[in-house]
Amino acid sequence: MASIITVNLPQHSYDIMIVPGSLGRLGEYMANLKLGNKVLLISNPIIFKHYGQKVINSLESEGFKVAHQILPAGEQYKNPNSIQKIYDVALANHLERSSTMIALGGGVIGDMTGFASATWLRGIHFIQVPTSLLAMVDAAIGGKTGVNHVQGKNLIGAFHQPDLVLIDPYILRTLPSREFRAGMAEIIKYGIIWDTELFARLEKSKNLSQLWHIKSELMDFILQYSCQAKVDIVSKDEKETGLRTILNYGHTIGHAVESLTGYTQLTHGEATAIGMFAAGEIAIKLGMWTKENSQRQNALIEKAGLKTKLPDSLNISKIIDALQKDKKVKEGKVRFILPTQIGGVEITDRVPTTAIYEVLSSMRTRD
Amino acid sequence: MASIITVNLPQHSYDIMIVPGSLGRLGEYMANLKLGNKVLLISNPIIFKHYGQKVINSLESEGFKVAHQILPAGEQYKNPNSIQKIYDVALANHLERSSTMIALGGGVIGDMTGFASATWLRGIHFIQVPTSLLAMVDAAIGGKTGVNHVQGKNLIGAFHQPDLVLIDPYILRTLPSREFRAGMAEIIKYGIIWDTELFARLEKSKNLSQLWHIKSELMDFILQYSCQAKVDIVSKDEKETGLRTILNYGHTIGHAVESLTGYTQLTHGEATAIGMFAAGEIAIKLGMWTKENSQRQNALIEKAGLKTKLPDSLNISKIIDALQKDKKVKEGKVRFILPTQIGGVEITDRVPTTAIYEVLSSMRTRD
Repeated sequence: MASIITVNLPQHSYDIMIVPGSLGRLGEYMANLKLGNKVLLISNPIIFKHYGQKVINSLESEGFKVAHQILPAGEQYKNPNSIQKIYDVALANHLERSSTMIALGGGVIGDMTGFASATWLRGIHFIQVPTSLLAMVDAAIGGKTGVNHVQGKNLIGAFHQPDLVLIDPYILRTLPSREFRAGMAEIIKYGIIWDTELFARLEKSKNLSQLWHIKSELMDFILQYSCQAKVDIVSKDEKETGLRTILNYGHTIGHAVESLTGYTQLTHGEATAIGMFAAGEIAIKLGMWTKENSQRQNALIEKAGLKTKLPDSLNISKIIDALQKDKKVKEGKVRFILPTQIGGVEITDRVPTTAIYEVLSSMRTRD
Repeated sequence: MASIITVNLPQHSYDIMIVPGSLGRLGEYMANLKLGNKVLLISNPIIFKHYGQKVINSLESEGFKVAHQILPAGEQYKNPNSIQKIYDVALANHLERSSTMIALGGGVIGDMTGFASATWLRGIHFIQVPTSLLAMVDAAIGGKTGVNHVQGKNLIGAFHQPDLVLIDPYILRTLPSREFRAGMAEIIKYGIIWDTELFARLEKSKNLSQLWHIKSELMDFILQYSCQAKVDIVSKDEKETGLRTILNYGHTIGHAVESLTGYTQLTHGEATAIGMFAAGEIAIKLGMWTKENSQRQNALIEKAGLKTKLPDSLNISKIIDALQKDKKVKEGKVRFILPTQIGGVEITDRVPTTAIYEVLSSMRTRD
């Protein structure tokens, strides 16, 4: 089953194509877009080993001149130094304003390639070929690009929309289970914040922790509905001035936990799962949603094989300090996205620090 | 005389205020814009010494919380390292998405502050307070921001529109003559590419090389008409896909000359004057405009005290090589903007290398 979702923004439109087996046809799709003939492919070592040559062959067979740059995998390399490496290879290969950078990888490769393409020559073309579930349903869509400052995630970045997002579900077959589960965390998030139908379908699946537990029709449905949810939200708020904030559900505490564990101990999705659990507990404490709904959310998190306890190493006061440094802080107040129903959330900056403290304390594995 | 030029772009509008003595009122203007209360002021040592405290007092008296960062003056410091310093101080002062970075300085400070504000938290507010003539009539208007790669000028950058451009012509009284002349080069450019009335007024002035030679009414006219010319052009082509290219008149060869002399020997305006002279000569050679018009252009360049000979140190083959590395190269062809009349230019990628070579050879001071 193939789906095409067209994203219409005021000054730019592009397609998200979800097509099994489409990786080897990237050159063909690109040729249709009438982009310039120079291409810089950015990938990480493992993905490039699996799929790099296939993509390059596809591009070269359509007459594109392809350079590539492999960057090490991992959030800790998503920094200005890696961006400088992309700039250097862009210069060496004489990339022009009509040229394209292609991200073949997960969210880290996508964010860096996006930022480099946003800022090289003040913006060149950009194609996302996400290879992780997380990147497919979240990071590759919406035009957010970013790199980390030593003291905080994604503090440096730009909005830069892709010209195409190509999703080949077959790639998920080689995705490690832990990364699959990380993507599932964001999918559960869409169920909570936006789409009751998606939530209901997830509830019907016995297990969400690995690809082979999930029927292929359900997986197609999940990909399509998750991408559509993200598109619906970002199309209504391209630059994150309002609605888009709800996408940060689970990310307020999630980011703090991720940052304090050095971006290495937990995947982004594992941190988000912890953040969603915490947001649910805070919402109950403030009388905003029911214990029953919270249990339904947490049951999905569990079916996806994700944990809801804080890593032992974390000090709760430090988490609360870190919240203050988050981008989402406005005039000194921490904004939380809290659930009110399945498929609906509210944004609030009125969460008492004591409530955060109590909820986080209850999430420790030991006292 | 005060002028306000409103710039209307599809997704953003802002004012350029040209108001003598307005520097001490920046806080007041900013308060009217309803921006967040945290401000980061970026300046260079000399400008900050002259005007920094005045600006800070104005902002603080309106309740803004002001941090500042002084960066060394000069094109050679317009690099990723300086941007990192701005990021660090932005983080240390907890700048938020509602916060503002203010550029108090010339084009270098404006470009760096613009790029940092474009990329910090994926874009925060930005105010330009240009202090050089060049920055007032050119760099501060249009939303181009950028930093240099070691191998080329402005290769890294972003489009990011300011929320306000505040021009206080009194500041020009402390501007060194050489920098004044550099700004005059861009003003002459507007006369050639766009505005015959501006050109005619410039022809009537006996001398254009220093502020005190120019009547204050004429100077007001020049500032207003030059800003308006830039606004007219960029409003029609925000992202430089077409018309805006004509602003690069004199910059094709100008950039190459500037780059090969390490950005230190010539001011940007001096390089542009050389570039405009060369473009005129090439246009004559191709039969596109008249010797008479070329002489009228060159007479203005001379009245502004600008030279039209190449620096002795430059090798002509190296200039031609450098043209190939320019951002304006499209599919390997160098684009030139060539004059066809006073107030009109054409864009062409059909200039024979031999013509470039011959013109540049005639511009050497010795054979």
